[in-house]
Amino acid sequence: MKNPTAAMLVIGDEILSGRTREANAYHLAGELGKVGIDLREIRVVPDDHAVIVDALRVLRASHDHVFTSGGIGPTHDDITADAVADAFSVGIEVRDDARTLLQDAIGRGRTLTDEHLRMARIPHGAVLIDNPVSAAPGFTIGNVHVMAGVPAIFVAMLDAVLPALEAGSPMLSRELRFEVGEGRIAAPLRELAVAMPDLGIGSYPFQEGPVYGTNIVVRGTDADRIDHALERLRGIRSSLD
Amino acid sequence: MKNPTAAMLVIGDEILSGRTREANAYHLAGELGKVGIDLREIRVVPDDHAVIVDALRVLRASHDHVFTSGGIGPTHDDITADAVADAFSVGIEVRDDARTLLQDAIGRGRTLTDEHLRMARIPHGAVLIDNPVSAAPGFTIGNVHVMAGVPAIFVAMLDAVLPALEAGSPMLSRELRFEVGEGRIAAPLRELAVAMPDLGIGSYPFQEGPVYGTNIVVRGTDADRIDHALERLRGIRSSLD
Repeated sequence: MKNPTAAMLVIGDEILSGRTREANAYHLAGELGKVGIDLREIRVVPDDHAVIVDALRVLRASHDHVFTSGGIGPTHDDITADAVADAFSVGIEVRDDARTLLQDAIGRGRTLTDEHLRMARIPHGAVLIDNPVSAAPGFTIGNVHVMAGVPAIFVAMLDAVLPALEAGSPMLSRELRFEVGEGRIAAPLRELAVAMPDLGIGSYPFQEGPVYGTNIVVRGTDADRIDHALERLRGIRSSLD
Repeated sequence: MKNPTAAMLVIGDEILSGRTREANAYHLAGELGKVGIDLREIRVVPDDHAVIVDALRVLRASHDHVFTSGGIGPTHDDITADAVADAFSVGIEVRDDARTLLQDAIGRGRTLTDEHLRMARIPHGAVLIDNPVSAAPGFTIGNVHVMAGVPAIFVAMLDAVLPALEAGSPMLSRELRFEVGEGRIAAPLRELAVAMPDLGIGSYPFQEGPVYGTNIVVRGTDADRIDHALERLRGIRSSLD
């Protein structure tokens, strides 16, 4: 059985302008690997309604899940919720349960501002994602999970979303270090990759002072097959001495 | 006159699996901003020939430049050059000038291996990009600039490529710190964004201990307009006291 697939859509001018270093993709990739959902694409797009809608339509049609990050705050550049509503061709308005979350957060005695209410606008048919950090919720609609860009909130929202998703076979990974350059082991590695096509075999060169080396990563869902590949890699390493 | 646009294509299973934190997009975004080329999209795809070819075709048709990162080493998982050749429907073979670079790097007396020669395979019609770090060249073909994923080499190759590209108006950026949450300033910010549609006005919440604050970033190519926006922002800040 194949693992479910996923794409990530990062929304934000601040990433594309070089102001901000993107911080959520690495976390998402690791967490999805643990539950056996294969992350197949990451896309970063600007705060541009038409571009976000197009990307959502393409990605949700080609993957089992889409995780978005960014653009759900109270300001004029927070346009993700409207784009998601358009991508699903549904309406969007302030929802009572979301409004209550925000009211509880600021205290019963105070009046919600237009900006608070902007964060309670939820596309029709969506399910709220809990935000234990700052109350303003994310939401899931269809196969799209809409989460905040602030890393602490993204992490918390992902924790709330993942347990409900159908898991696949967790991706396992082992690594072997070679203190030779990639070129010296490329030929036997290629043989190994051909012999074990069910595994992903990656080759990552590094330099540590005067040492040129290569880390070989073996990935797959079957621990025995990975062990077998590691044995063959150790054989390759011995033959270099 | 509009600035040239660009997309980045990051190629590598190691990013999508969560093994490696992507490290080149932030650098590229900053460098492109300095020379006035607008980065409009970043896409991360796996080591999958058909997926890379499709992404290259889409991105090169919709942007003035495409910068790729990753997959040009000597091992079986380095498939970028072949995918680029396919995306341009041109042949690919070992090229004499690339072979000479590698021969010089290992020394005249030694014999190039198949793995060395793999790094000298260049699509027809491409121009080599110098690699002062480890000799194996990148290349430019049409509007696609193919560079290494190893950060030190990516940086060096970008330094070699950028001076030759037509520059736009450098993107200027100034920032003002508000020690209030986004909600308190969302309304006047929206007014400012409407009044000065030539500028990008971004709102980025932060938390430092007990302080909830918001950094407002104003971006544009006209320094006077940015100064004017900053003045208005200072006015908004004063009115909060």
